[in-house]
Amino acid sequence: MAVEIERKFLVRGASWRDRVLSETRLLQGYLSAYPALTVRARIRGETAFLTLKGRTQGISRAEFEYPIPVADAEVMLRDLAVSPLIEKTRFRVACGDHIWDLDVFAGENAGLVLAEIELESEDAPFERPDWLGEEVSDDPRYYNVNLAGHPFSRW
Amino acid sequence: MAVEIERKFLVRGASWRDRVLSETRLLQGYLSAYPALTVRARIRGETAFLTLKGRTQGISRAEFEYPIPVADAEVMLRDLAVSPLIEKTRFRVACGDHIWDLDVFAGENAGLVLAEIELESEDAPFERPDWLGEEVSDDPRYYNVNLAGHPFSRW
Repeated sequence: MAVEIERKFLVRGASWRDRVLSETRLLQGYLSAYPALTVRARIRGETAFLTLKGRTQGISRAEFEYPIPVADAEVMLRDLAVSPLIEKTRFRVACGDHIWDLDVFAGENAGLVLAEIELESEDAPFERPDWLGEEVSDDPRYYNVNLAGHPFSRW
Repeated sequence: MAVEIERKFLVRGASWRDRVLSETRLLQGYLSAYPALTVRARIRGETAFLTLKGRTQGISRAEFEYPIPVADAEVMLRDLAVSPLIEKTRFRVACGDHIWDLDVFAGENAGLVLAEIELESEDAPFERPDWLGEEVSDDPRYYNVNLAGHPFSRW
């Protein structure tokens, strides 16, 4: 069990593309999409993961993640997902002492680019790159679970 | 992913106690208890498992089970369970070519003893021991997920 502290921002421009460390295609869906419990199956390249998250408290929430067979994840996404799947490409981008995850969405969420940083505490300092836009950590529209049910293209 | 075919029966008397192969204490709870998705955390002795099950179709349903750290299961049962926990002792009992699971419930479900057999197909033959009572495979009251929310002692 890990307590996950993440801050999430919109992204301006494409200058971050000069600092990309890696790029991975992600396909994910939710088997449970309630605030008290989200259950996510995610296929990341040749690997897959099952992730359970409890209720958000501030910007922290309990998170459990386990590797699972890709074949299991495929069946879960096909038979048990409760809303359309999310497709995105995740770019790892270096900035100061931190590495950001930039998610470039496809499919129903095409046009949306979000940047996430994982921090040790809710008020940990971090360098703000020039491509960093408005913070949306507290905006439920940008939760992946909500982007599945209410994608960006329909806002 | 396995498709699980189980038949479940009440148990009469205690003659099965002469055929016990093993005995294990189980503590389990549900993180999600919807027909479309049940998520169960179970501590079995020194091990723990996370189990996801999809909607029941006939007496079959999709099931995914993964070993998880006991410490994770303890946090899940403490913080994420949606109803009271189920405590029971599981006895493995030999009968003909099959091994039955006999669950002797404790706590709020004390007094209830259920026998389960896992079969290769919905109509696979099996020997019926003398302690076998009424079949309750299709009675939702005996689903563990419902025994958590509506325990036997309150029927």
